[in-house]
Amino acid sequence: MATMADSNRQLQLTADGELKHFLSLEGLDRALLTRILDTADSFIEVGERSIKKVPLLRGRTLVNLFFEPSTRTRSTFELAAKRLSADVLNLDISTSATSKGETLSDTLLNLEAMASDMFVIRHAHSGAAHFIARDVTPGVAIINAGDGRHAHPTQAMLDMLTIRQHKGSFTGLKVGIVGDVQHSRVARSQIQALNILGAEEVRLIAPDTLLPTEPEAMGVRVFPRMEQGLKDLDVIIMLRLQRERMEGALLPSEREFYKLYGLTREKLALAHPKAIVMHPGPINRGVEIESEVADGPQSVILNQVTNGIAVRMAVMSMAMSGQLAERQQQAKAQQKAQQKVQGNG
Amino acid sequence: MATMADSNRQLQLTADGELKHFLSLEGLDRALLTRILDTADSFIEVGERSIKKVPLLRGRTLVNLFFEPSTRTRSTFELAAKRLSADVLNLDISTSATSKGETLSDTLLNLEAMASDMFVIRHAHSGAAHFIARDVTPGVAIINAGDGRHAHPTQAMLDMLTIRQHKGSFTGLKVGIVGDVQHSRVARSQIQALNILGAEEVRLIAPDTLLPTEPEAMGVRVFPRMEQGLKDLDVIIMLRLQRERMEGALLPSEREFYKLYGLTREKLALAHPKAIVMHPGPINRGVEIESEVADGPQSVILNQVTNGIAVRMAVMSMAMSGQLAERQQQAKAQQKAQQKVQGNG
Amino acid sequence: MATMADSNRQLQLTADGELKHFLSLEGLDRALLTRILDTADSFIEVGERSIKKVPLLRGRTLVNLFFEPSTRTRSTFELAAKRLSADVLNLDISTSATSKGETLSDTLLNLEAMASDMFVIRHAHSGAAHFIARDVTPGVAIINAGDGRHAHPTQAMLDMLTIRQHKGSFTGLKVGIVGDVQHSRVARSQIQALNILGAEEVRLIAPDTLLPTEPEAMGVRVFPRMEQGLKDLDVIIMLRLQRERMEGALLPSEREFYKLYGLTREKLALAHPKAIVMHPGPINRGVEIESEVADGPQSVILNQVTNGIAVRMAVMSMAMSGQLAERQQQAKAQQKAQQKVQGNG
Repeated sequence: MATMADSNRQLQLTADGELKHFLSLEGLDRALLTRILDTADSFIEVGERSIKKVPLLRGRTLVNLFFEPSTRTRSTFELAAKRLSADVLNLDISTSATSKGETLSDTLLNLEAMASDMFVIRHAHSGAAHFIARDVTPGVAIINAGDGRHAHPTQAMLDMLTIRQHKGSFTGLKVGIVGDVQHSRVARSQIQALNILGAEEVRLIAPDTLLPTEPEAMGVRVFPRMEQGLKDLDVIIMLRLQRERMEGALLPSEREFYKLYGLTREKLALAHPKAIVMHPGPINRGVEIESEVADGPQSVILNQVTNGIAVRMAVMSMAMSGQLAERQQQAKAQQKAQQKVQGNG
Repeated sequence: MATMADSNRQLQLTADGELKHFLSLEGLDRALLTRILDTADSFIEVGERSIKKVPLLRGRTLVNLFFEPSTRTRSTFELAAKRLSADVLNLDISTSATSKGETLSDTLLNLEAMASDMFVIRHAHSGAAHFIARDVTPGVAIINAGDGRHAHPTQAMLDMLTIRQHKGSFTGLKVGIVGDVQHSRVARSQIQALNILGAEEVRLIAPDTLLPTEPEAMGVRVFPRMEQGLKDLDVIIMLRLQRERMEGALLPSEREFYKLYGLTREKLALAHPKAIVMHPGPINRGVEIESEVADGPQSVILNQVTNGIAVRMAVMSMAMSGQLAERQQQAKAQQKAQQKVQGNG
Repeated sequence: MATMADSNRQLQLTADGELKHFLSLEGLDRALLTRILDTADSFIEVGERSIKKVPLLRGRTLVNLFFEPSTRTRSTFELAAKRLSADVLNLDISTSATSKGETLSDTLLNLEAMASDMFVIRHAHSGAAHFIARDVTPGVAIINAGDGRHAHPTQAMLDMLTIRQHKGSFTGLKVGIVGDVQHSRVARSQIQALNILGAEEVRLIAPDTLLPTEPEAMGVRVFPRMEQGLKDLDVIIMLRLQRERMEGALLPSEREFYKLYGLTREKLALAHPKAIVMHPGPINRGVEIESEVADGPQSVILNQVTNGIAVRMAVMSMAMSGQLAERQQQAKAQQKAQQKVQGNG
């Protein structure tokens, strides 16, 4: 019987195990994730050149299809694509396309007919990118830029790249994720990435009201009290308080939250002295994190941003290359089948 | 006495009969329209390459000047221009420029002074593109992307390209245009294109309330009943129900309209068995067309979209080339005149 | 004691006196301004080619960071950057970024971490570009595209280029600035530029209510009556009536303003017969200027627009080159320091 992980792997990988879509980390293995990190590493250097461009995706068309507005994430994908020499079309669907009564499926079919090569998709509904990947024209790659509460895999991979840069490897690492885990697609993808890459322990540090249901099934340990959870941590990942996603009164107040789960210098002292501090941004200073910690020597928050461009370049170029390989293989298979028919004839 | 067609031809063509603006099809001849289709055909192949780029308009600046918002049409012009290697500037005038009290004419003069090479113009007023073309700086090409109820010539030409691909030629073809003809600039341009290219018969299938005044003068036959109009048709062009353009209660209801003029499998069976089904998009499923027909084997709706990029590439590169030729000729003429003066001196 | 001019010079120039930011003209000298004009002159020719592109900034990333919307100014910077082959990211901050509670400083740090090379900044607060330049990552250039009532230096420099083109030099020139000087960042920068470049006389022609406080300290002569102020002028610079910036009832009515300070053919006749007429645009016809004058033979308003692209290309390429030189020098200095340490060791 095919599990979720199996079907997710099949959807994202070619027969040879190469990436062709990038939707979520479920079912992907350590070798592939490591290949993404290695590829991203090689692109870090491109961002440091004065000519920040490689011709890998020249003449390819990337469509940024954002059903939820996000200037920041859209910009990183746009910059990553331009550094790969791709042409970029930004469509803010929340304000435009479906307004004329067209279905989502028809909008997509139209964009595919315009010979687009890749869609970067952000959508408020969990599973939107998977849904689209299942039906998309062969040869077109889908990259998930965040779907509902489900997954945000490029964010998780840029976090992994940042951890590897600072810690060398994942072996023996203790990583804590702090805050509103329940509403966070970032946290879901981070937990999967850390488990696949072999971190020793993943901790969720959050009150009951902000935990996912059955957290233990995710391969994590839960710490309702931050002071206990921080002990010996090598990596502290603060989550953004998703004020816009919180339904109802799950927390007494921001001030109360900060007192219990905000990362202050005092609390940071409880972790390993060489612990690094991460945050996906944008940060709410004084709500999740004290300014002195965000700007302090243990913070790697801006490295995360820089790595975001490199990881997106890696994922886009790998998916395009996987799509190309698959098409060539199919063409070869067809040719062989025809030769066989002719041989028999 | 110069007719409308004469003046339209003069405005759009160089002295040698080459395209220099593309405003409407009125007054253009079969040879020119065929040249547009042939050029577009040669660009179809570019969209199928992995590097979808030709350097024809490298270093040229295209300005998308949309006084009516239209993400879809703007995107096709933007992609077409980028595949020709042009630089693209998108200006959504409905939200910005004239807000500071500047006249349309001043906005245009300013953009021309920025060394723009081409304007793609969409405007709610019929004749806007003509008006602009009459006054524009020599060397700058104007492309009409839809003006009021008047014309949408690139849409009509992509439809012609789609018909020619599927039917080989226009000789002997019976083509029906179904729906809200009165409010449709697309229909006006299609009728002209079909007559110029030599279709045998063009039919309008619509109730009296959605017909233009004096349709017979347009070289068409009118069929108020769809069942009769569809008989023997080779090409069925469904129009979008322009709900946003309809003034007052010209129709009892969408349900009633669908019953009378919606294209269902049953009605489609009345046409020629090899008839193709077209729609300019975005489609209203269940209002103008049954989903099974839109997605069925006779539908070429997505081919139209693909052809839209190729036709726009053709028209843009031809108009730029016409402008260049005209400038060179004028420079030569000036030189000759000067030599004559010097010879006489 | 360091003056404002000193600190402004230090912030904008490298140790070798090359431009590395472009924030305001205060403290800059005639040689540098002349170098900007000469560089811009060399780019004028690029705009006249059919391939309007030079590879100077290929692979560089320019971010247009507009906290005040301005389609026109943003477009000229975007076109200028594309003609230098840079990649452009447009961020309309007024509608997006800080909406999620992020501080301006964090937004900028994030953009810098994405390996941006240059920010073009427009902001409603005077001093915003200086503030940002003071803290920006080394290597990143800041260009001021208008801050509050303070400065708009690229506008002033395109005006200077236009004057030099038509008058040859600034020696002996009498220049009048007419209208709402008090609210105009353009006027402030023009006055500085004209004084640095050695114009003989700069006049402000405005009612008391629209004059800055202590105009005499700016090196200008004040003329409340236009008829007197226009006498013998070589250059007449009309300002836009900043209706959106005017607080309270400083003027009886637009009609009254036009009667007193609008430039009509009658009034123009009072200036030098070869006087040129300038306006930063967008113009309010019949409010600041009579249509016949705006379109007349003495108007150079559209030349200003064309020059705007060239001046922005000049400033961007010079600032990038200054940043590069500074980084190379710092690297060399570091190397020398290390060699010295090793030599001593």
